[in-house]
Amino acid sequence: MSALTVTGIRITPVAFADPPLLNAVGVHEPYALRAVVEVRTDSGITGLGETYADEVHLGKLRRAAAALAGHDVFALNTAFTAVTVALAGDTGGDAHGLTGLITESGTVERVFSPFEVAFLDIQGQALGRPVADLLGGAVRDRVPFSAYLFYKWAHHPADPDGDRAAGEPDEWGEALDPAGIVAQARAMVDRYGFTAIKLKGGVFPPDQEIEAIRALRDEFPTLPLRLDPNAAWTPATSVRVARALEGTLEYLEDPTPGIDGMAEVAREAPMPLATNMCVVDFPHLAPAVAAGAVGVVLSDHHYWGGLHRSRLLAGICGTFGMGLSMHSNSHLGISLAAMVHLAAATPNLSYACDTHWPWKTEDLIVPGALEFRDGSVAVPTTPGLGVTLDEDALARLHEQYLGCGIRQRDDTAYMRRLRPEYERRSPRW
Amino acid sequence: MSALTVTGIRITPVAFADPPLLNAVGVHEPYALRAVVEVRTDSGITGLGETYADEVHLGKLRRAAAALAGHDVFALNTAFTAVTVALAGDTGGDAHGLTGLITESGTVERVFSPFEVAFLDIQGQALGRPVADLLGGAVRDRVPFSAYLFYKWAHHPADPDGDRAAGEPDEWGEALDPAGIVAQARAMVDRYGFTAIKLKGGVFPPDQEIEAIRALRDEFPTLPLRLDPNAAWTPATSVRVARALEGTLEYLEDPTPGIDGMAEVAREAPMPLATNMCVVDFPHLAPAVAAGAVGVVLSDHHYWGGLHRSRLLAGICGTFGMGLSMHSNSHLGISLAAMVHLAAATPNLSYACDTHWPWKTEDLIVPGALEFRDGSVAVPTTPGLGVTLDEDALARLHEQYLGCGIRQRDDTAYMRRLRPEYERRSPRW
Repeated sequence: MSALTVTGIRITPVAFADPPLLNAVGVHEPYALRAVVEVRTDSGITGLGETYADEVHLGKLRRAAAALAGHDVFALNTAFTAVTVALAGDTGGDAHGLTGLITESGTVERVFSPFEVAFLDIQGQALGRPVADLLGGAVRDRVPFSAYLFYKWAHHPADPDGDRAAGEPDEWGEALDPAGIVAQARAMVDRYGFTAIKLKGGVFPPDQEIEAIRALRDEFPTLPLRLDPNAAWTPATSVRVARALEGTLEYLEDPTPGIDGMAEVAREAPMPLATNMCVVDFPHLAPAVAAGAVGVVLSDHHYWGGLHRSRLLAGICGTFGMGLSMHSNSHLGISLAAMVHLAAATPNLSYACDTHWPWKTEDLIVPGALEFRDGSVAVPTTPGLGVTLDEDALARLHEQYLGCGIRQRDDTAYMRRLRPEYERRSPRW
Repeated sequence: MSALTVTGIRITPVAFADPPLLNAVGVHEPYALRAVVEVRTDSGITGLGETYADEVHLGKLRRAAAALAGHDVFALNTAFTAVTVALAGDTGGDAHGLTGLITESGTVERVFSPFEVAFLDIQGQALGRPVADLLGGAVRDRVPFSAYLFYKWAHHPADPDGDRAAGEPDEWGEALDPAGIVAQARAMVDRYGFTAIKLKGGVFPPDQEIEAIRALRDEFPTLPLRLDPNAAWTPATSVRVARALEGTLEYLEDPTPGIDGMAEVAREAPMPLATNMCVVDFPHLAPAVAAGAVGVVLSDHHYWGGLHRSRLLAGICGTFGMGLSMHSNSHLGISLAAMVHLAAATPNLSYACDTHWPWKTEDLIVPGALEFRDGSVAVPTTPGLGVTLDEDALARLHEQYLGCGIRQRDDTAYMRRLRPEYERRSPRW
């Protein structure tokens, strides 16, 4: 094989329509942002990656891209070092309400990730092998995902501070009580065959969310259920909810903030606690293990430094007796492909993965490569990630980015424009 | 790329001459055993691996080889499962005096390792890339090794129970006191430029070995020094030696048996403790971390399940604040190549690796690919492992295996034939 050297990297921010999904820090804005990373090589092969597109992150991506010019796509170790050096002095301190504080090393992992995915996409294409084969090979043909339920409004309201009129109701309608959640779950399970269900909580007082979970259990007696209040509760509230839902949840996700708080709850909770908030970077693992804070880690290649480093996380979970599931951030098809390859090649990923699909209705890959059926997605067997960029769709979503005015995800600020009395608090109850 | 499917596997036990090197359980026999694994594929490419050749291990290798027939060399995850299944009911319980008890999972790791290395050799050759590139890429051009000093006799004595006459003195001569050890070190450093020194201890009472280390420090004021008594000491003796050698050793290796004993010593010792005896398999890591037993893990791809799983070990060490070095078992050139690729692609491997070279004087690879210079070996940049089997040498060393009569390494039994009063004890002092 000839050298596979990076000759250019294009980073394109895009925006796609997002429904008004409620969470512990506010509500999803009308558009979600993503950045598409296209890595070109001297061989003519281009690789794809996808990541966040907040403005600060975009700046870091561009610095990293400059540092990776001329790099060999097999030289992942030195690429990581190059990104570390490129970001020196400009890391740490980012905060993201739903995935915890971003440390210095965490910043590097986040910035490195889409380039690593694109490098692997190129390696796979050059070798004529799917990306899963670069990760030890698929151990399953299909990757199961969970239905991701959200409390939500029927449509985006008119924005009092902007010039935007109220949106049209989406196909899912309103869900603000247990009956609405059950109806949403029923529609999602009937259409796509999901075999596990996750409810995004932390929106209403805990007793209402307990009631929603019980209603889901009544409607779906055998499906595994999860509840994720995004650290909206105190340890005492968390223990109370955990006990109330004994025997009902396969895991309880991030009930309370911080490793110490989670450890306090874990000592009393009858089900495993999962997290994508208190363990989001390698330095969090040793203290979490020592404290016994976490039963299940929700991996996410976007902030665990790409696919190889997510496999390291998987190996650590297996070695230290923790379960492994997969977190989802609003994503497009490039990331879904990466998630599917990673999950397929990770033997101890024993839970159905999270996904924001089908909330997302727009995409920028050529359709057909990734289909949800029976609650799962078939692992692509074509070379690389197995997805192709739809240039027209990319241009359209980039135009949408330019026009939408959103430059940084801020669910709280959006909620406060609509409901000025809204306050963000963690824990809230 | 077309499929790369296993069409045949040849396992050849070999024996190579080994000097009378003393250790905590006896003395090296006149021949050391290894097994060479050759994996053929439908593409015509053959890959190489190397492992132990004790008779029980050979039987397991053959069972694993049968299970891997027809396997895709990229499908490492399912290959590991296939080996696990093939060995079901025939694992665990092996004991090896110098690397601790072999657990059930440890047996699978040991048997899987040479096949994984051979699969990677094939992948690399097919891709036109060195194996290091399949592990994230080399972060160093040369891999430093330490000089490995042994107390030793000048030659193998006549064997009273056999028909073997006394051997010829080797080029290194006798080393049974501090002066002999210093002379050996001086010759080794002068000839090959080693920049770190390890003494295999546990042979003489601790005060004599302390004296040897001090003599080495006087002769080599700046070189990092290590002492490895292979668990010959009680915790109390270990602490006494550790204090006596404060400021002199970069690490003290396996002074005492077991995780609890090591933890007891670690609390008092002024230098890090290293191990290749109490942490030799993934299930040992969580208890060792919890106990704070180990400062440095000596990785060894032969028993940590190959190169990818050794990288997982490396990532665990990095994540949990442990250092990483590399253990050596008497090896030939195939394993040396694998060690060099792995070490080159492991950023946190910050210590010079161990090697039994130059004690080994026979090999079975075509010379020239791996040269010790300035205490280090250049990382091969040719495809795969970068070494070629010398068929004549393989045949010669296999004949030697057939003729030597040794079928299982047993340093203790050999010592007892020569010195009937010898008793194996751990701890001894």
